[in-house]
Amino acid sequence: MKQIRLNAFDMNCVGHIHQGLWRHPRDRSTQYTDLAHWVDLARTLERGLFDGLFLADVLGVYDVYQGGPDAAVRAAVQVPVGDPLLLVPAMAAATTHLGFGVTANLSYEPPYTFARRMSTLDHLTGGRVGWNIVTGYLDSAARALGLDGQAAHDDRYAMAEEYMDVVYRLWEGSWADDAVRRDRAAGVYADPARVRAIRHHGPHFRTEGAHLCEPSPQRTPVLYQAGSSDRGRRFAAAHAECVFVNGGPKPHVARLVADLRGLARSLGRDPADLKVFVGATVVVAETDALAQAKRADYERYASVEGALAHASASLGIDFAAQDWDDPIRAGQSQAVTSNIENQAARRPDKVLTRRGLVEGLSLGGRQVPIVGGPATVADELMAWVEEADVDGFILARTVTPECFTDVIDLVVPELQRRGAYKTAYTPGTLREKLSAPGDRSGGSPRGPRLPDTHPGASRRWRP
Amino acid sequence: MKQIRLNAFDMNCVGHIHQGLWRHPRDRSTQYTDLAHWVDLARTLERGLFDGLFLADVLGVYDVYQGGPDAAVRAAVQVPVGDPLLLVPAMAAATTHLGFGVTANLSYEPPYTFARRMSTLDHLTGGRVGWNIVTGYLDSAARALGLDGQAAHDDRYAMAEEYMDVVYRLWEGSWADDAVRRDRAAGVYADPARVRAIRHHGPHFRTEGAHLCEPSPQRTPVLYQAGSSDRGRRFAAAHAECVFVNGGPKPHVARLVADLRGLARSLGRDPADLKVFVGATVVVAETDALAQAKRADYERYASVEGALAHASASLGIDFAAQDWDDPIRAGQSQAVTSNIENQAARRPDKVLTRRGLVEGLSLGGRQVPIVGGPATVADELMAWVEEADVDGFILARTVTPECFTDVIDLVVPELQRRGAYKTAYTPGTLREKLSAPGDRSGGSPRGPRLPDTHPGASRRWRP
Repeated sequence: MKQIRLNAFDMNCVGHIHQGLWRHPRDRSTQYTDLAHWVDLARTLERGLFDGLFLADVLGVYDVYQGGPDAAVRAAVQVPVGDPLLLVPAMAAATTHLGFGVTANLSYEPPYTFARRMSTLDHLTGGRVGWNIVTGYLDSAARALGLDGQAAHDDRYAMAEEYMDVVYRLWEGSWADDAVRRDRAAGVYADPARVRAIRHHGPHFRTEGAHLCEPSPQRTPVLYQAGSSDRGRRFAAAHAECVFVNGGPKPHVARLVADLRGLARSLGRDPADLKVFVGATVVVAETDALAQAKRADYERYASVEGALAHASASLGIDFAAQDWDDPIRAGQSQAVTSNIENQAARRPDKVLTRRGLVEGLSLGGRQVPIVGGPATVADELMAWVEEADVDGFILARTVTPECFTDVIDLVVPELQRRGAYKTAYTPGTLREKLSAPGDRSGGSPRGPRLPDTHPGASRRWRP
Repeated sequence: MKQIRLNAFDMNCVGHIHQGLWRHPRDRSTQYTDLAHWVDLARTLERGLFDGLFLADVLGVYDVYQGGPDAAVRAAVQVPVGDPLLLVPAMAAATTHLGFGVTANLSYEPPYTFARRMSTLDHLTGGRVGWNIVTGYLDSAARALGLDGQAAHDDRYAMAEEYMDVVYRLWEGSWADDAVRRDRAAGVYADPARVRAIRHHGPHFRTEGAHLCEPSPQRTPVLYQAGSSDRGRRFAAAHAECVFVNGGPKPHVARLVADLRGLARSLGRDPADLKVFVGATVVVAETDALAQAKRADYERYASVEGALAHASASLGIDFAAQDWDDPIRAGQSQAVTSNIENQAARRPDKVLTRRGLVEGLSLGGRQVPIVGGPATVADELMAWVEEADVDGFILARTVTPECFTDVIDLVVPELQRRGAYKTAYTPGTLREKLSAPGDRSGGSPRGPRLPDTHPGASRRWRP
């Protein structure tokens, strides 16, 4: 039976997806500045045999709603927000198997220093690091970083393609596998004939120099992508090893997944090398009734204003300035257009309006939760895997950390009883764990490095 | 009696200051990619009541010697080298008091994202982070980061002044002290009226946006600087709270320290707010004779080629292309000129030649070690403090970690017996610890934030 993979979705901030829940008496998200909070979370997730903790990030402030950042600041909607990479080393020191998928925006850091950061993390975690490739979507971020505004949507993907090529060359091609000798007697740490400079002078990036890090366990970190536009899906099919898709009707997601796997196949990749995780929110308790009561309790703390501030920035539309029942149409930019199209595709039965958006809010976010006792939730998760051909889930936090401990204590044992969830980790790096056997999706076990069919593999050291 | 402060000097690499010693059978520097190595080191230093662990960094490869990087790669002279910031969170999670001074080059990262990184670290460490401000000095780094070459020396300091002003505004002025309410009942995490955007459009940097982090314990991290040119000293006197100076004859260092403190006073600062640490290498054993034997044992593993590769890059002169007895003169750049001048000033009795440099090498580095039993070493450290008015030392590693455990087990107890070393940490942030009473240098205890006389304090939130 196909093994369901679980990832936690979190962010170095107070309000992540479900806005307002920090006000719940049992919520601990205001402890995000405390290392012990993160170390405890990592240990909890490893106890639950989660594949990974996925850390979102954003570099700007949400200032579309009401034309300014006030609502976001008041409700702590992804602001304040700390650097996600700096959470990983302490969590890695406290765990052995848990993977870490970290979001990093390639628009604002040169490939040379970014490649070093990720190689350093891959070394320090023993090969448990992944990179969620984003190009950003906020004008506020572009302005904060000294630009007049962000690049156009498709230009950002052209930049991303060039960036990937540079980092592949640094990670895969600068140091030969046998470059490091550590020969104490001969006094040779590395053989200079097996280390070479990368030279790249492209339209967006330039670099000239050897990668500063010796080869790390995975070299290229496991690559994550969540782009949902057509261009984003093509990018994901080419580069991603893990793809996050938003929820919606299962047949819609099934078509999206089939499309992604087909695109990957057409690019010469094994479609099973693409792991697809669907964003989900689970509210579980001992029984269905208790779970519904828990959901109702959470709902009392949800912030509609926070959710609107978040949605306005995501879609690039100020909902405060929209009439309640006017259809929401694209306008400003390609990014907005594709966001609207995706929003529409997820709910093809509805015209998106402000009223519709607010009515669709649940727990202060746009993800409709899966609510029930252990059997109900397990049924629904398994139906998703069966009907939409996804590999697992990325679970958004609600009231934290109990949203994760509930799943671990109630849902994981139920899935294990059904043979749908591992009972121990596979040894090795994150990449090896993700291709572990026992997965009916047809993938075969992979080593710690990129498979030969991945575009990054073409940048490996050649004599 | 003035309390001597000790800091460890290390780097996320194999060969730091004393080249070749990784070949010593007891040396563990090749474990630099292992988190446990760093966690153990941090615990060791905290056991020894060290004020801080100072982490160096460099972004390029040393490619001046013999016109290429081969010697540096072979001897692992600061290459490979990992990102230093990523070591801190795991060490912070394993300790309570130890401070972390991290080198970061301001030439290659926008102030907006860098300010977030440091605020994140200051939060996660509970206010134990410092920043060693560098502008870089390697053309190889500039090329790797996409430039034709580095900016001229004085231009880099003009950039640095502008950069400091932007980060001060982000750290000190974007969020009022009372901005964060965490009011669960009212649903107000932060008061938007008490958070404001920073706008800066200068010749080198632009930003427009609120700082992404809420105020951290220290806001501005403790500022370290090691510039030794005239311009560098003026920068240090204005901004630095801790200054590192190289060794040399004590009277020369005494003049330098007096000059620094005088400059600080002329800028309206309390000279005692400037802590000065002199770079030192200590080889200690139970007796003087055993220490000399230990030094001789270490010396067998030193790498002259590695030391020359390091010195060639530091001074911008290819020693392989110099005649043995020709005086070494400045040529290429302002940076080289000031390096030579500083080198000459440290040894005013000698004309610097290639032969002189090689003869002056000790343990594969240019720092002449302090060698002896506990009393001999303690005498010398106390003489430094007495004669040169320094506040303590930054101890370079030789054979690691025994170079630090030796000092902790042998020198620290001796200094404590003499009343010259604390017997417990002062509570509070790194900044508070650095101004702890019992220090005859005349400083008074400071809070966790910059003192009012510091230029960054002028950027505090004002109504």
